[in-house]
Amino acid sequence: MRKALAIDVGGTKIYYTLVDENGRIIADVRKFHTPNEYNDIIKIFSDIINEYENQVDVVAFSTCGAVNNSNDKILGSTGNIASEYPSTDFKALSNKPVFVENDANCAAWAEYSIGASKGFLNSVMLTLGTGVGGGIIVNGKLLKGKSGAAGEMHFKMRNDKHRKCTCGSWDCFEIYCSGTGLKLTGVEISNDKNITTYDIIKGKEDNDPTMLKIFEQWQSDIIDGVVGLANIFDPDIVVLSGSMAEFVDVDFVTANVNNQIVTTPTKVVKALAGNYSGMIGAALLAFRKGF
Amino acid sequence: MRKALAIDVGGTKIYYTLVDENGRIIADVRKFHTPNEYNDIIKIFSDIINEYENQVDVVAFSTCGAVNNSNDKILGSTGNIASEYPSTDFKALSNKPVFVENDANCAAWAEYSIGASKGFLNSVMLTLGTGVGGGIIVNGKLLKGKSGAAGEMHFKMRNDKHRKCTCGSWDCFEIYCSGTGLKLTGVEISNDKNITTYDIIKGKEDNDPTMLKIFEQWQSDIIDGVVGLANIFDPDIVVLSGSMAEFVDVDFVTANVNNQIVTTPTKVVKALAGNYSGMIGAALLAFRKGF
Repeated sequence: MRKALAIDVGGTKIYYTLVDENGRIIADVRKFHTPNEYNDIIKIFSDIINEYENQVDVVAFSTCGAVNNSNDKILGSTGNIASEYPSTDFKALSNKPVFVENDANCAAWAEYSIGASKGFLNSVMLTLGTGVGGGIIVNGKLLKGKSGAAGEMHFKMRNDKHRKCTCGSWDCFEIYCSGTGLKLTGVEISNDKNITTYDIIKGKEDNDPTMLKIFEQWQSDIIDGVVGLANIFDPDIVVLSGSMAEFVDVDFVTANVNNQIVTTPTKVVKALAGNYSGMIGAALLAFRKGF
Repeated sequence: MRKALAIDVGGTKIYYTLVDENGRIIADVRKFHTPNEYNDIIKIFSDIINEYENQVDVVAFSTCGAVNNSNDKILGSTGNIASEYPSTDFKALSNKPVFVENDANCAAWAEYSIGASKGFLNSVMLTLGTGVGGGIIVNGKLLKGKSGAAGEMHFKMRNDKHRKCTCGSWDCFEIYCSGTGLKLTGVEISNDKNITTYDIIKGKEDNDPTMLKIFEQWQSDIIDGVVGLANIFDPDIVVLSGSMAEFVDVDFVTANVNNQIVTTPTKVVKALAGNYSGMIGAALLAFRKGF
C-alpha cells in the first residue's frame, strides 16, 4: 500500500505525519510552530523530508494559500506567513514526487473520501476558523478554476462597504462568518470593543440576550451564505469544519437554507474527518494523481 | 451533418428554428406568443414537431426552469408560464430523441461553443434581463449539481432583508442586477415610484445626476456579484448577456472586479452568440450528448 509523508503548513503551526492509501494516519502526528523566518520554514521542511522520504511514495503538502493546477506552486500571497513562502520550489524539496494543494481543498477532499460528504459527488465545504476556507467538489472533482485558486469564500454579504475584509475588499462572507466575524458582529451589537468570541459563545449558552442576538446574527449570516452557495452549486451536502463549526446548529441552518433555495434540498452537516483532514486529503489527492 | 429542431420556451415567447452541428441557424426563426393555457402550449409544440421532426436528428428544447441531469424533465416551478408546464413529458412529444436544458445554461453553452467564451474552459455567464439567469462552465462542462438545478443567481447582496426577491427570499443578486433590480434601485434613490428602466438609461445618457447615481449603484451591485463569483470559480471569463447587458461598461466592471478578487485576473465581456443563443446551445448540447 502506498504511503505519503503529509505536511500541513499554516500560519501558526506546521504538522506532519504519514498517511496511507486508505486515508489512515499511520504514524504519530508531530508539530512545529511556524517560524517567522522563511529559511527556518525551509529548514523544517528539509529535516522532516530527510527523515521520512525513503519510507514514502510521495510528499504531500496541505498548505495555506491558493495552489496552481499542476499542484506544485503557490499562487499569489498567503497572509500571515513569511512573505517568501509562496515562492517555494516544492519539487526541489525532495527526491520523491511532491504534491501541493490548498488546505481547505485538502480538507474538503478528506471529507469526500472518508468523512461527512463521503459518497456525495457534489459538496461545498466551509472551514470556519479565524478566517473562512472553502473547498468545493463538483461531480467528484475538486473545483480549481483556470489557475487553481477557485473556492475562495470572498463573496459579499452587503453592498454598502460596511466591514473591511482581510482580503482588502469589503463585506466578504469570511469577515462575517469566521471567528473574527463573530467578534466583529459582537462589537457592533454590544458596543463593547473588547468582546471576545469566548464571551459570546459562553453568554449565548447562559442565555444572555445580547450574546444570543450576536450569535443568531452570525448564524443568520452563515445561512445567507449557504443559501447563495446552494443556489449556485445545487450540492448534495454542505460540510462545516473548523474551530467555529461546533457552535453552529446545523439542523436549524439546514431547515432555513432549504426554506429559501430555488434548487433542490440540501443538507448542512459538520465535518467528520478530524483535525488532520488537511494532511489526509493532501495524501489522498496525491495518490489519486498517480503518485 | 446532424440537424436539430431547436425550440426556445419562455414565459412570453416560443421561438423555433433548425440548427446544425456547427451551431449555425439553417432555417427561418419563427415565433409564437406563449399561450396562457397549458394545452395550447402543447399544441404549439406538437405542430412544430410534426412539421420538422422528419428533417432532424433531435428535438432540442431551451426552456425556462431548471432541468434535470437526464435532460428530460423540468425540476420544480418555473414562474410566469402555465403551472402545468413543468410536468411536461418532453420525450413523449416526438418520435425523435428529445433533449431539454435550461435556457441560461443553453446560452452559456452557445457562448462557450461559438461566442464570447469560446476556447475558455472556465466561464460564468449572467443573463441580465427582466430576471437574471446563470450558466456556469467548469473545466469544459456545464455545472449542473446533484439534480441539474445549479447556476441559479440567487445569492444575497445584503443581510438585512431589504428587498424581496421573486424567488420568495430576500436580497438576491437577481433582484438587484436585473432590469427589475435597476428599476427598484431607481425607486429607492429617486423616490419616484413610476420611474422606468428607460428613464434611468435615458437620464444617465443625458448626464442627469440622479439617473447616473442609480445606474452606478446598479453597476456596482453587478461588480459586487461578479467579485464573489470570480472568487468562487476563478473563471477565465465572465459573459454578460440579456437585454440589460448592453448598458454595462464591461471594461470598468473588469477593472473593478480584478481590483478586488483574491483569485487570478478575469475578464468581463458581452455575449456574442446572438439573440438565439438558447436554441443554438440546446442543439449543440444535444449533439454533444450523442443525439
